[in-house]
Amino acid sequence: MYFKIYHKNYNSNARIGYFLTDHGKVNTPIFMPIATKGYIKTLTKEYLDLINPEIILSNTFHLNINPGIKILYKVGGLHKFINWKNPIITDSGGFQVYSLSNPNNINKYGANIKSYKNGKYYFFTPKKSIIIQKYIGSDIVTSFDECIKFNSDKKYVINSTNRTYNWLKECIYYFNKYNLYKHKQYLFGIIQGGIHKDIRIKYTIKTSKLNIDGFAIGGLQVGETKEEMYNIIKNVKNNLPYNKPIYLMGIGMPWDILNSISLGIDMFDCVIPTRNGRNGMLFTWKGIINIKNKKWKYDYSSIYNNFNNKKIYSKSYLRHLFINNEYSGKLIATINNLLFYKSLIKKSRYHIKNDTFEKWKNNIIPIISKKL
Amino acid sequence: MYFKIYHKNYNSNARIGYFLTDHGKVNTPIFMPIATKGYIKTLTKEYLDLINPEIILSNTFHLNINPGIKILYKVGGLHKFINWKNPIITDSGGFQVYSLSNPNNINKYGANIKSYKNGKYYFFTPKKSIIIQKYIGSDIVTSFDECIKFNSDKKYVINSTNRTYNWLKECIYYFNKYNLYKHKQYLFGIIQGGIHKDIRIKYTIKTSKLNIDGFAIGGLQVGETKEEMYNIIKNVKNNLPYNKPIYLMGIGMPWDILNSISLGIDMFDCVIPTRNGRNGMLFTWKGIINIKNKKWKYDYSSIYNNFNNKKIYSKSYLRHLFINNEYSGKLIATINNLLFYKSLIKKSRYHIKNDTFEKWKNNIIPIISKKL
Repeated sequence: MYFKIYHKNYNSNARIGYFLTDHGKVNTPIFMPIATKGYIKTLTKEYLDLINPEIILSNTFHLNINPGIKILYKVGGLHKFINWKNPIITDSGGFQVYSLSNPNNINKYGANIKSYKNGKYYFFTPKKSIIIQKYIGSDIVTSFDECIKFNSDKKYVINSTNRTYNWLKECIYYFNKYNLYKHKQYLFGIIQGGIHKDIRIKYTIKTSKLNIDGFAIGGLQVGETKEEMYNIIKNVKNNLPYNKPIYLMGIGMPWDILNSISLGIDMFDCVIPTRNGRNGMLFTWKGIINIKNKKWKYDYSSIYNNFNNKKIYSKSYLRHLFINNEYSGKLIATINNLLFYKSLIKKSRYHIKNDTFEKWKNNIIPIISKKL
Repeated sequence: MYFKIYHKNYNSNARIGYFLTDHGKVNTPIFMPIATKGYIKTLTKEYLDLINPEIILSNTFHLNINPGIKILYKVGGLHKFINWKNPIITDSGGFQVYSLSNPNNINKYGANIKSYKNGKYYFFTPKKSIIIQKYIGSDIVTSFDECIKFNSDKKYVINSTNRTYNWLKECIYYFNKYNLYKHKQYLFGIIQGGIHKDIRIKYTIKTSKLNIDGFAIGGLQVGETKEEMYNIIKNVKNNLPYNKPIYLMGIGMPWDILNSISLGIDMFDCVIPTRNGRNGMLFTWKGIINIKNKKWKYDYSSIYNNFNNKKIYSKSYLRHLFINNEYSGKLIATINNLLFYKSLIKKSRYHIKNDTFEKWKNNIIPIISKKL
């Protein structure tokens, strides 16, 4: 994959660049909104086009159940099914080994994952995950892994991390064997290792020697402290090649993203802007609004990050929608938050370019994390 | 209220015209989408503006509970609260006497109505209904009535219809007594009488002599046959003055609307396009689609009534959204149906103008009512 870094800060690892896919260019750092089953929850295509994320993230395990690969294949892949022209990255199903399976259901071949939907178990293997991702046709495919539970003992972490590494080698084999559509796909390898510096470094070095297009750091924000998390990120980053993109999986809050950009992370995804939006949490440049709160009852001023900067929705009205559990409220909050994240990324790139990122970041975090 | 009929068909009572309010002109016949608590379920303001209904219908009982008149009054009425410039009509709460109360809770002063929300009872009177509607600031206010249950005996219907008539006179008194905002409001009187021709005619004649701006036919589509319903509509219509608008409350399916336009009805409201849309029923000019049906699984053609006529959503993709109970599916179906109803009304006006309405109506009903 063509990946170019065109500026790195002198006082941190923050960097700006871009990579190219057959569905277009993606600037980094980048936040990738979550479209698990092909849609970002609450958004219609019209709103998606207006927010216009440079890349979205979908999920292999979920898409395999619903709508299923046959429906995707017949229309020519996920891009065509959802009528989307920009790049797509897919999570491999490895997170579902964490959330919908357990160590008893995992062996060296793969993992038995229980569907939240029909209660059925699906045996996922590296081969199966890759083949499904070939049917999906995502621009960036990720390797099948086990996202390890936080309370696992070190012996388990060693075995699991080694298994994840072996699975990655299997993924590379099958990834290079199949091609269903005309556009090119790229493969990212996921690095696990829990909070153990030694395991993380060992497998980072091993993984960095494989012929893959980028690296993903998995298994963080599962219970460890922020300090532990940042330590792992630093240690992994320091043992990866400079010229390939690094994706920090599942993170996070705006300040987590800013701090991780400082450490040299290029790509992010997280449910927070969308899921928390649906629950009434609005990110703004003045702080965090819980729109259900009584304090907004008579506040007729418009919400800060309005769509197209038009003053359309007052806080009092948006609260009314949330109090009534009305869909459009969730949609408006989702738009607000995705626009906030987009602008967070845009400002980050600007400040990296001007070598003012660290100062700006330290200045802005106390403001945007404040509860209004 | 200024109401002008500029053409009536020679072979039916179908007519086209318009009335004026301080929030703009409304052409008739008109279908008024339901925005019970100020919002049409699933629609954001952006979509509402693009559908641009000439008038919407909100509900006095529901708005009184949520957000409550204090929030509405402080911002200057419902139009300002929801940021809506076109006319609003409000139902008086009389339908909730039917749906959320029972005859034991009704006396000559008013009715005790149970909130679906907090279980509390609200004693509604003609005065209370009118005052709330003054706070709401709807362009068209309706009188407080009892929508009578279908299985009521004739004695009950006589008493209730007489009470509704007395309440209307009380409503007129309070309606003329208060004014909270700068814009003018108009009052429609609701006529009840069950399926009894004699009671309906008696109270239609009595109501027609009162100083009100329009007439609403209530208490239909509550269990009676279509034949009984159309008979009542004919008998009421024949005893009303020609030069005032007639509103048929709560009806209905596209064919019910077309048949009632033939009988001389000018105004309609119904939950069907929005509620049934949320359940996956799509009205189209080729027939009715149940989008959850397996037959659309591999149908990648776009839905017929696309927004702005762009081919955005395939049937297979829309089905995927519905199978996953995804909000945006409900929104897309709601838009589809409201645009269908809008176009139904537009075509009706065109055919009335050209005296081809009866022929067109008889031709189109078997097509649009067919299940695809």
